[in-house]
Amino acid sequence: MALTLNDIETPAFVVNEERVLRNISKFQNHCDARGLKLRPHIKTHKSIRFAKAQIEAGAVGINCQKIGEAEIMADAGLNDILITFNILGAPKLARLRALAERVTVRVVADNPVVVSGLSDAFANAPNPLGVLVECDTGAARCGVQSPAEAIELAGLIHQSPGLAFAGLLTYPAVGGQADVVTFMRETRDGLSASDIACPTISSGGSPDMWQAETGGVITEYRAGTYVYNDRSLVERGTCTWDDCAGHVLATVVSRPTRTRAVIDAGSKALTSDLLGLDGHGHVIGHSGSRIVGLSEEHGVMELPEDSALAIGDRIHIVPNHVCVVANMFDQAWLQTAAGDIVRLTTDARGRVT
Amino acid sequence: MALTLNDIETPAFVVNEERVLRNISKFQNHCDARGLKLRPHIKTHKSIRFAKAQIEAGAVGINCQKIGEAEIMADAGLNDILITFNILGAPKLARLRALAERVTVRVVADNPVVVSGLSDAFANAPNPLGVLVECDTGAARCGVQSPAEAIELAGLIHQSPGLAFAGLLTYPAVGGQADVVTFMRETRDGLSASDIACPTISSGGSPDMWQAETGGVITEYRAGTYVYNDRSLVERGTCTWDDCAGHVLATVVSRPTRTRAVIDAGSKALTSDLLGLDGHGHVIGHSGSRIVGLSEEHGVMELPEDSALAIGDRIHIVPNHVCVVANMFDQAWLQTAAGDIVRLTTDARGRVT
Repeated sequence: MALTLNDIETPAFVVNEERVLRNISKFQNHCDARGLKLRPHIKTHKSIRFAKAQIEAGAVGINCQKIGEAEIMADAGLNDILITFNILGAPKLARLRALAERVTVRVVADNPVVVSGLSDAFANAPNPLGVLVECDTGAARCGVQSPAEAIELAGLIHQSPGLAFAGLLTYPAVGGQADVVTFMRETRDGLSASDIACPTISSGGSPDMWQAETGGVITEYRAGTYVYNDRSLVERGTCTWDDCAGHVLATVVSRPTRTRAVIDAGSKALTSDLLGLDGHGHVIGHSGSRIVGLSEEHGVMELPEDSALAIGDRIHIVPNHVCVVANMFDQAWLQTAAGDIVRLTTDARGRVT
Repeated sequence: MALTLNDIETPAFVVNEERVLRNISKFQNHCDARGLKLRPHIKTHKSIRFAKAQIEAGAVGINCQKIGEAEIMADAGLNDILITFNILGAPKLARLRALAERVTVRVVADNPVVVSGLSDAFANAPNPLGVLVECDTGAARCGVQSPAEAIELAGLIHQSPGLAFAGLLTYPAVGGQADVVTFMRETRDGLSASDIACPTISSGGSPDMWQAETGGVITEYRAGTYVYNDRSLVERGTCTWDDCAGHVLATVVSRPTRTRAVIDAGSKALTSDLLGLDGHGHVIGHSGSRIVGLSEEHGVMELPEDSALAIGDRIHIVPNHVCVVANMFDQAWLQTAAGDIVRLTTDARGRVT
């Protein structure tokens, strides 16, 4: 007999398949219409099933953050993988080399130490490793700090044995799309003056996804969160509650006072990520109620005086930040279009290296 | 050839065995000297190895928060388990019933709905299920709100088929040990007046562990974090940096500016738990440096102008809250007294139900 939502134990991470597929298709259409290649980041779903669905919808390949994620995806047949992380150290370089012998893999670098390590690892490889220069266009994370530095590092990659310069990449600050275009145009023009081909210029980010366009310079867009969406994106206006495809299902286990409920989802389910928001997720259908505190396995809710929420009631929570929540559960539950509930493994969960 | 710390890939959760065993022994001695039974909470290590070490050191049994954790521990031979969570719903009650047929298991309740569910599940069981009344002595999480309510609920458990009233329990507010004693003494005296035996009165919490004493009423103490300790406990004065047995090992992967470094541990390793602290962990040996921001796989550090921290350097981070960090990694690394590095599985990781 098919499972229903009532059969599954809480806390659970429940994914609505129709919404996922709609989210995938909608943003693919956006990119197609603007001449942008879409390369989804699998960090959010970490799921083979959905990576394949994204490729089927028209994505050019996938984006991973860790070699371990890429290995899982390569095992499953995904064959065009960009790893957007500086890779360092002999064990990781050996794994990258092995991966590159079975799928198309490209990586990034933002400094000469990383370039040197990659070059040493690939100097005698059958094919050169494509390396993009990561640029800091305002997010203040990784990345070279200026177009001049980007051009210099691209030149170094271009000259390094075993490597091929493969383009430019940035993870922009939220709201920073115009800065990306300015930085990338100047860098591209400088590379062109140095006769260095720049096949890909990659930007990304779900918060500004509906503003994604080439600006005459961007060729590829990377986004991850859009597949599930979350409270942070709703609050920003990027999507609606009905676009949120990943919920935490929790049960009210205690009503110690008239205005307090305790649920069985704490920081080991919802995580402590706030992303600037107040409280720990949005409780669907209980707009006056807030999750005001988390301990590891308890969530403490503040309720209106007249709340009818009772012990045993189940609630659906849209998490603040769905990417880290999906990563807490070895297994999620997929609600199919037919209303059935099936297991959804989070294939690359915990692949930290 | 034996592994050393240099061989393992980052980010990694590294546990120092000597420190763990010292932490276990030191707090066991504290409890023994004060006539308190110690019941360690396995939520922190989620490790069979260390649960057994705690029992060998003199613990009376273990404390779990989830049936899934208890099942893993029972499979490994741990046979006295207290689950400190309201258990609701047919699937969980069936699992609890099965667990109770192979090990000694007790649970808590703070409301009649939970008591009724437990009674229905155990009415025809070979042995009654021991149920403690959870009391809110100031932490404002679960628990009955007054001694009068506690006595009433104890009476209900006492009369319920399949159940045996097994005592009182609280997770106190930090600094709230005196409130615990007051609440518990009044409740115990009330139970005594009603001729209801109260075999166990259980308090707990690592923050105030060195103040743990019976106060003439507490019989058992539960603590979890003390096995590894963390930055929150150092900042509170509960332990020193040298008592911290769980570190996150990370690598500097980028130095975009003179005062910024980026490491390969983000919120999927360190978590976003702040516990009221500033920044995302304490970087050992780099006291002027702070981890000021986390994205999922990147940690952003702010460094002094003269910092020599270089790309490829490895750093040890004492996490703000070690319990949630240990839970991120399917596998940790154990540094033995001999300096070897061996795999340490986080056996009950992700056991959310």
